[in-house]
Amino acid sequence: MTEIAFSLPAWVPAFVQAAFGQAAGVPATVEDRMRLVIAAAWRNVEAGTGGPFAAAVFERDSGRLVALGVNLVTTQGLSLLHAEMVALAAAQRALGRWDLGGAGLPAHELVTSTEPCAMCFGAIPWSGVRRVVAGATDSDARAIGFDEGPKPADWRRALEGRGIAVLSEVLRDEACAVLQAYARRGGAIYNGGGDSSSDRPRGRG
Amino acid sequence: MTEIAFSLPAWVPAFVQAAFGQAAGVPATVEDRMRLVIAAAWRNVEAGTGGPFAAAVFERDSGRLVALGVNLVTTQGLSLLHAEMVALAAAQRALGRWDLGGAGLPAHELVTSTEPCAMCFGAIPWSGVRRVVAGATDSDARAIGFDEGPKPADWRRALEGRGIAVLSEVLRDEACAVLQAYARRGGAIYNGGGDSSSDRPRGRG
Repeated sequence: MTEIAFSLPAWVPAFVQAAFGQAAGVPATVEDRMRLVIAAAWRNVEAGTGGPFAAAVFERDSGRLVALGVNLVTTQGLSLLHAEMVALAAAQRALGRWDLGGAGLPAHELVTSTEPCAMCFGAIPWSGVRRVVAGATDSDARAIGFDEGPKPADWRRALEGRGIAVLSEVLRDEACAVLQAYARRGGAIYNGGGDSSSDRPRGRG
Repeated sequence: MTEIAFSLPAWVPAFVQAAFGQAAGVPATVEDRMRLVIAAAWRNVEAGTGGPFAAAVFERDSGRLVALGVNLVTTQGLSLLHAEMVALAAAQRALGRWDLGGAGLPAHELVTSTEPCAMCFGAIPWSGVRRVVAGATDSDARAIGFDEGPKPADWRRALEGRGIAVLSEVLRDEACAVLQAYARRGGAIYNGGGDSSSDRPRGRG
């Protein structure tokens, strides 16, 4: 195999057009941006295209959407396809730049419906985003059985020490509602690490 | 955009065939496996297809190669394409399973020419591998200017606490040699986080 590909769900373009099209304009506040990301998490669950997580990259100051991502772990078959990773990769491809903080680019931010897991936390500095905006907390994710991985307790400070601002608990209740609804309807708490531990929380997206 | 794809370098299939073909057989020891991964890191540098890092997923007990990955950050334009992430994704696609520790599969291991950065460390539990074998240390990577990110100091213990064994410094000198050669020839120490800090270490692959 020499090529590895994954696809965003078929509903994404129309969703983005409806939410961010010319008439709708750009979401000015972080709450407006988070509301759209939470709506994408709902849609991902309702459409059966992945776990209850979404994220997007915006231009921090203008609010222009660069790319939307949703959790695709089980549906696209790759454990790395957490919403944040998908959004960052989609944004880098949209701009043709592997560094969203590169010369000549406006500052970018990652808006995520749930705080990043250990992997996505580690990916954030490499992506070049200047700010992270999170809705539900990692404890909210753990409360429904998802594992956030071996993330340092002082992860916010670690990002801020690298010049990346962190805004937490933006519309936390609304963001948490999608997690809880997913759990209530018996959505799969899919895990890495296999059969010997399939009944305890191991991973998420 | 609805599809995101990246490609392994064109030299990979022939390299794999030569190293792991029927005549060459399977590499029985972790040193044999590491030697092949280090050779792939050299090739990646010589071919100009990415940074001085390679990784591979093997069946832990048999030594069968499942997939090889190399660093592709700058050449494929995505900051997540560290060698370990590429190897894990390629292995998951090769097996058609997002969990390499899933039911019915043999135990898998990740052999990496340099210890994982913060992102790849966080990705390991979600991948389902049961063992990590590393060559050069994160301090070796930092010594030539690459940043390993905000990885917990006790990262080995965090993995072992999740049932993932860690073997460090396997052929460390040989693995380190490729990093040092890359630095000597002035290879780009590419970074995320942009222009304001382009002259200090920020990322790697």
